[in-house]
Amino acid sequence: MPKTKADFPVDKVRRYLEPGPIVLVSSAWRGEKNIMTMGWHTVMEFTPSLVGCVIAGSNHSFDLIRRSKECVINLPTTALTDTVVGIGNCSGADTDKFEKFGLTALPAQKVKAPLIAQCHANFECRLEDARLVERYNFFIFEVVKAHVARRPVHPQTLHYTGDGVFMVSGKILSRRNRFKPEML
Amino acid sequence: MPKTKADFPVDKVRRYLEPGPIVLVSSAWRGEKNIMTMGWHTVMEFTPSLVGCVIAGSNHSFDLIRRSKECVINLPTTALTDTVVGIGNCSGADTDKFEKFGLTALPAQKVKAPLIAQCHANFECRLEDARLVERYNFFIFEVVKAHVARRPVHPQTLHYTGDGVFMVSGKILSRRNRFKPEML
Repeated sequence: MPKTKADFPVDKVRRYLEPGPIVLVSSAWRGEKNIMTMGWHTVMEFTPSLVGCVIAGSNHSFDLIRRSKECVINLPTTALTDTVVGIGNCSGADTDKFEKFGLTALPAQKVKAPLIAQCHANFECRLEDARLVERYNFFIFEVVKAHVARRPVHPQTLHYTGDGVFMVSGKILSRRNRFKPEML
Repeated sequence: MPKTKADFPVDKVRRYLEPGPIVLVSSAWRGEKNIMTMGWHTVMEFTPSLVGCVIAGSNHSFDLIRRSKECVINLPTTALTDTVVGIGNCSGADTDKFEKFGLTALPAQKVKAPLIAQCHANFECRLEDARLVERYNFFIFEVVKAHVARRPVHPQTLHYTGDGVFMVSGKILSRRNRFKPEML
């Protein structure tokens, strides 16, 4: 089911990305759109809100993203497990993945790449730095707009270990009272 | 308790790092050693085994790592939760963190930075690329030697969400039979 979302501060997207979930990256270029799964990403800065990620040249999305200089990082939950696996095991070169997997493409606010309505969160991204793309397929994006579903507060996310095996996010543990205020 | 470990293939460290755990980075330079917590990292390549990570200049470890061009990425489990929090909330500028937290520094095989015996896994790293250090504090390391405890097969890891709150790794879900062989 598509999820209703609220605006979320872009400098706080680490809340969802730092724990290391598999994400779905949507992109668009000249009337074509696509989705890929991505597990190799890291938060790089709060302000501007930077995320670095590896998008291999063998992905059909590579050219769409490199040319449009935009993408959306979408956060799927376990409700989409088989969709995540399916998206990673077919190619946008011969498949309309939105159609094949029954996903809804919603217009984004600041980029042309579409939001995936069924995901828990959508982070609109603009390419900030491409200097490591040629050597490492490493793209640095700025998150320019974030949308997050209000519930659940702690969505069940998928964390890939390789070999077709995922770890599912588990219990929440607060140690807030042991942190220095400036470290929070 | 210190853990007994076996050699592990460096091209398979994504098994432990891709799910996005908080890690402890140990370093050494001219007789001084230190540990920091790190949540901003990503796998970048299988062979060579590359890991990219953000180490802010405000960390005492920044200079030790930049000068020695080495570090060890250690994987703590929930047994070390309070140690992880404590390490992130004090500075190596005025604290011997190995002593303060009762951690055992073992000699590594290929780098001078020490292994943390109590962690589930230790990945010895050499600096591979520093060209984004000045602009983004982003270091790219090559994992040159890996040590992993044989049990448990799926250690309980900590995944940081900010605000003093961790997600603990949960259940394991295999979808191996839905992957194309070449995607495994």
